[in-house]
Amino acid sequence: MPVGTQGTVKAVSPRELHELGAQIILGNTYHLHVRPGEKLISRLGGLHRFNGWDRPILTDSGGFQVFSLARLRKITEDGVHFQNHLDGTPTFIGPEQSMEIQRDLGSDIVMTFDECPPYPCEEAVASTSLDLTLRWAVRCKEWWASQPDESKPLLFGIVQGSSYPELRAKSAQELVKIGFDGYAVGGVSVGEPEPEMMAAIENAEPHLPQDRARYAMGLGTPPQMVEMVARGIDMFDCVLPTRLARNGTAFTAAGTMALKNAGYAEDPGPIEEGCTCYACANFTRAYIRHLIKAEEILGLRLVSLHNLHFYLNLMRTARRAIIEGNFAEFRRAFVAGYKKNEANA
Amino acid sequence: MPVGTQGTVKAVSPRELHELGAQIILGNTYHLHVRPGEKLISRLGGLHRFNGWDRPILTDSGGFQVFSLARLRKITEDGVHFQNHLDGTPTFIGPEQSMEIQRDLGSDIVMTFDECPPYPCEEAVASTSLDLTLRWAVRCKEWWASQPDESKPLLFGIVQGSSYPELRAKSAQELVKIGFDGYAVGGVSVGEPEPEMMAAIENAEPHLPQDRARYAMGLGTPPQMVEMVARGIDMFDCVLPTRLARNGTAFTAAGTMALKNAGYAEDPGPIEEGCTCYACANFTRAYIRHLIKAEEILGLRLVSLHNLHFYLNLMRTARRAIIEGNFAEFRRAFVAGYKKNEANA
Ligand SMILES: [Zn+2]
Ligand SMILES: [Zn+2]
Repeated sequence: MPVGTQGTVKAVSPRELHELGAQIILGNTYHLHVRPGEKLISRLGGLHRFNGWDRPILTDSGGFQVFSLARLRKITEDGVHFQNHLDGTPTFIGPEQSMEIQRDLGSDIVMTFDECPPYPCEEAVASTSLDLTLRWAVRCKEWWASQPDESKPLLFGIVQGSSYPELRAKSAQELVKIGFDGYAVGGVSVGEPEPEMMAAIENAEPHLPQDRARYAMGLGTPPQMVEMVARGIDMFDCVLPTRLARNGTAFTAAGTMALKNAGYAEDPGPIEEGCTCYACANFTRAYIRHLIKAEEILGLRLVSLHNLHFYLNLMRTARRAIIEGNFAEFRRAFVAGYKKNEANA
Repeated sequence: MPVGTQGTVKAVSPRELHELGAQIILGNTYHLHVRPGEKLISRLGGLHRFNGWDRPILTDSGGFQVFSLARLRKITEDGVHFQNHLDGTPTFIGPEQSMEIQRDLGSDIVMTFDECPPYPCEEAVASTSLDLTLRWAVRCKEWWASQPDESKPLLFGIVQGSSYPELRAKSAQELVKIGFDGYAVGGVSVGEPEPEMMAAIENAEPHLPQDRARYAMGLGTPPQMVEMVARGIDMFDCVLPTRLARNGTAFTAAGTMALKNAGYAEDPGPIEEGCTCYACANFTRAYIRHLIKAEEILGLRLVSLHNLHFYLNLMRTARRAIIEGNFAEFRRAFVAGYKKNEANA
């Protein structure tokens, strides 16, 4: 899922997202609550009409941003008191408030409100936090169950438990008892080493039902995503394609490419040979490097398009490999090809 | 003509320019000479292949930027010694160098190299400057005449003469004697009051041949352009559509509109009712205001598209009015409608 933090996938239009084949985008509940506010968006017909995106939207619960961006947090059983990062306005969000904001946005998939402990985290702290997150998950489910059936969104639960295998397992098991339309693994890619990230997935996954979507939140590099697909993950959201594009870094099957490098100054080739995106079909590395060096917006636009294409295409290729029964081979070849050149870079 | 200073019309892709109906864009000789350099662009197949624009490109001569951006200028009969504004590299550009750079870029319409005196300017200084510009114009024409016929671009001369009617007239008459494919009026919109700007056109125009294009350089507001069309001008280049877009200012038939204003926060209408651009066809003022406030690139992209559409459409409408014989009425109504609301704003 391309990430549309503030109601837009950065620098990319809905038409371009359509052409890239994006099926769903993510909206950030916290950011949209702070500005322009879900009530305003609701009065204008909801987030789909507001930002012109007519396919599904998944909204996060705001929990991650409350715990990473907001100031002066105070956590109670009810929820979280904080001052927003923009103008310090005192705000309270608990499970019910998060659900209501996501409803007002008109989201198609809503996420439970969770506490996101920092990394690293003592086991006792992680355990207490997980219990609170589970009680909040129950309240989200109850709120959701009380809603009228028509146009009710899907509700996904979020596995927490930091780097503790027993907590991850317990979290998954308890969420399944509550019962959700899909399950996310949160609290990953928060600064932990990659083996711990993979372990967090491995410790949760066996407890999640086969017939529900599994979603790893806030990830990751292309090989990380392929490795997580191998571990049973179906969905991702990731800011890297657009974030790295703003610095002129492109993703390719042979690893990342810093287009600012002088070596590309006269390079007549596309970002990636064989790529069918608008940038690669029409422009050279030399031109895109010039745009990035000159700080021209078209430069980051073109790299954003290429990177989003790369990520979406990687997922399409993985899906096809699974269907055709050669995913193991695809995984081995892709990860090796990507990392080999990264090591040389 | 949309302006592509550094080899891109700011924030806009060639595909979007096509869709807007742009027939020609302007490239800045000075900027492209400084970075990435015309030799590099030439080795990559010229500016058209470099930036993916397959319709005509007009390049300015670099004169205006040398006199407005570069440092430590020293003007001689031969040309101008200066340090470029980026890294201070000592550089020399004279008439022949300007022609060669424009040839290397692969321009379709090249401009003579001129001295651009500041405003205001003593008459004696303006007169001496004009004489130099005319001698340089002769050298540009001689250089151009020495080129092989195949793929030779059109060459336009530039009228100077500051705010002095006799100098403007003399400049135009002398240029016509040399003979060019088209004639530009330069040294306008350099800080002078609007009546002086119009006078500069009026003093030059009667001396320019009817069957050659007339181009007013570096202009202007929508009413200024309509007023100059009324005075016989055919072509314009203007950075305002994209420059003002970056601040969230949109052009409309009722004057400019600052989309940041709180009054648009919940406005469900398009930037301009009836406009057929991508921004107006798909997005509300409320959404675009949100994007601008949140400093999202899509915001300035959408306003840029609307503003370019507005300018290009204004010229199409003026052309149609001339053909249909009702230009006088169009001019009166447009200028009155635009200025009335500006006064109220
Ligand atoms: Zn590409
Ligand atoms: Zn419009």
